[in-house]
Amino acid sequence: MRGSTMTILLHVTGMDRAAWLAAIKAQAPRLEVISAADTDRFAEIRRAWVWKPPAGLLGQLPNLELIINLAAGVDAILADATVPKHLPILRAVDPNITMRMTEWVVLQVLFHHRQMPAFMDQQKQRVWRELPQKAASALTVGILGMGVLGQSAARALAGLGFKVIGWSRTGAQPLNEFLGQTDILVCLLPFTPETKGLISYELLRQLNRGGPLGAPVLINGGRGGSQIGADVLRALNDGTLGGASLDVFETEPLPEGSPFWSHPKVIVTPHVAAYSDPEAMTAHVLEQLARHEVGGTMAPLVDRARGY
Amino acid sequence: MRGSTMTILLHVTGMDRAAWLAAIKAQAPRLEVISAADTDRFAEIRRAWVWKPPAGLLGQLPNLELIINLAAGVDAILADATVPKHLPILRAVDPNITMRMTEWVVLQVLFHHRQMPAFMDQQKQRVWRELPQKAASALTVGILGMGVLGQSAARALAGLGFKVIGWSRTGAQPLNEFLGQTDILVCLLPFTPETKGLISYELLRQLNRGGPLGAPVLINGGRGGSQIGADVLRALNDGTLGGASLDVFETEPLPEGSPFWSHPKVIVTPHVAAYSDPEAMTAHVLEQLARHEVGGTMAPLVDRARGY
Repeated sequence: MRGSTMTILLHVTGMDRAAWLAAIKAQAPRLEVISAADTDRFAEIRRAWVWKPPAGLLGQLPNLELIINLAAGVDAILADATVPKHLPILRAVDPNITMRMTEWVVLQVLFHHRQMPAFMDQQKQRVWRELPQKAASALTVGILGMGVLGQSAARALAGLGFKVIGWSRTGAQPLNEFLGQTDILVCLLPFTPETKGLISYELLRQLNRGGPLGAPVLINGGRGGSQIGADVLRALNDGTLGGASLDVFETEPLPEGSPFWSHPKVIVTPHVAAYSDPEAMTAHVLEQLARHEVGGTMAPLVDRARGY
Repeated sequence: MRGSTMTILLHVTGMDRAAWLAAIKAQAPRLEVISAADTDRFAEIRRAWVWKPPAGLLGQLPNLELIINLAAGVDAILADATVPKHLPILRAVDPNITMRMTEWVVLQVLFHHRQMPAFMDQQKQRVWRELPQKAASALTVGILGMGVLGQSAARALAGLGFKVIGWSRTGAQPLNEFLGQTDILVCLLPFTPETKGLISYELLRQLNRGGPLGAPVLINGGRGGSQIGADVLRALNDGTLGGASLDVFETEPLPEGSPFWSHPKVIVTPHVAAYSDPEAMTAHVLEQLARHEVGGTMAPLVDRARGY
C-alpha cells in the first residue's frame, strides 16, 4: 500500500461484517472499505473481499482486478456469469482454516468411534454401562477429496491410529473399491458440476457394512451440494448409515422444518467446521497481497477449468 | 508355558468376564482359568489376572507370585492389607490403552473447544447460528499428571495446535502458576493419598478465567477419588467452571440419583476412557510374561512407595 489509500469492497454474506471491519481497520488502516450499497464508488474498486457475493454484484465493478474469496468454496462466484472469466480469484485458505477443519473432522470421527451418541443417550437415561470399543486401528476412515484440507485431516487421523485412505477424482482407484473399505466416510470435496449430488443412496450403500461400528458413518465438512439430503435421510432411516455429522446442507441456513435437526443419529453444526476467524484471515490475505506487490505468487488461485 | 498347564485366577469386577475368557482361550489355550468361587484350588494359583479384586481375595492365595492388574489404577490392590507387600504387581498399560485414553482426551478437549455443547443445544432448538471460535493456539490445555498417558495426550493435543502445559507432583512448577494459565484442565492422575480430593473448589477457582471459552473446563479421565464431586458441582453451578467431561467418579457406578447425570454442562462416560479391549490386553500381558520367562524385565511394575 506504500503510503497510499486503496478502496476495497467488503461483502461477507452470513459472516460477521463488524468483525471483518475491525480486523481490517486494525491490520490495514489505509484500506478504505465500502459496501455493496456505495454504488457511486464502484469505479474505485480494484479488489473485492467477498464471501458468497450475490449474483451480479462483482460484474458491476468496472475496474476490478482481483477477487479475494474469504473461505474455501468459490461456487457462488463461478456460478455468476457476470464475473469476467479473466479475473484472478484468490481463495483464502490459511493454515488456520486448515487446522480448523482438521479439528472438526477429528472431533466428529472420534465422536462416532468412541460411541458418544450411545453414551450420551445412556447419560440421559442414567445408565452406567461399558460398550465394546475397538481400537482406532480397527477402523478405516475414507476421505473423499484429498486437497489441502483432506491431507491435513488424514495426517491427524493417522496419528491417532486410524487406518486412513483417500480418494480424489484425479486418482487411479475406483470409487467402489474405496467405499467398500470405508467405515467412516469424510467428505471434504469442493462443489463442482462433478461432485454435485455425488453422495447418493447408491454411493452410501457401497460403504463397508462389516466394520466395528456396526454400520458406516458419514461426515460432511465439504459442501452441502455434494450430498442428496433425501438420500442421506433414507440411508440413516433404513440402517444403511449408523450416524452422520453434517456441517453443510443443500440449503443453508438449514430450514427449520428439516428432518435433520431432530434426527437421533445426526449431529448438525451450522457451517462452522472451517470457521474463518476474521483476524487470522485478514493477516493471511494481507500477506498474500504483500507478496503479490513485490512480484511473488499468490497461492492458491482458483482454477476455473477444474471448477475450484 | 513350554507345554505345561498353568492355573490362573481371573477376577474382573465390572468388566466382561466372557470376553476375557474368550481372549485367553484363543491366545493361551494352556492357561487354566479359575474364578474366586473355586476356593479349593487356590493353592494352585501363582498368577492372578485382576481388575478391582474385592479386599481379601488375593490374600487367600498362598502361592501367589505375581498380580497382573488389567488396567492402570492399582488403588484397590494397594488398599488391601491382606496382599503381601513383596508381591510384584504388573500394571498392564499397553500402547492400546494409552492411545485409547489419548483419543478420549482429544475428543473431550475438541468437544468443548469447538463449542459442541452450545451447537448441540442450538440443534435441539433448530437454530442455525455461527459462534465465534478461536484457534486451538489461543487455548492452553493443562495436564495434571504427566506419566505415559499424560505425555501421549500432550503430544496429540500439541499436534492439533493447542498450547499444552503439564504438571506433576515431582516437577518444579508451583501448582497455582500452572492453574492460572490453564483454560482446559485435563486430569490423568493416579489415585494416591496425595491426589485424593485434590480437585477441590479451591483448586478450580485458580484456573484461568480470561480464556477464549469464557470459563475453564474440567476433563477427568484419571480417577474419581481425585475430585471432590460436590466441589465440581458447586463450580459448575456458580460459573467457576464452564463445563466438564467426567469419565470417573468418587462412587462407581455413578449412583442413579447423582446430579451429574442431568447436569446441562456435564458429559458423563462410564469409566471407558481407557477401555481395556480383552484381546489387545491379553496379547500385551502374554508378551510381558514371555519376556519375564526368559529373564527380561516386565514393565511397568507398580512402585508401592509412590503408590502407583
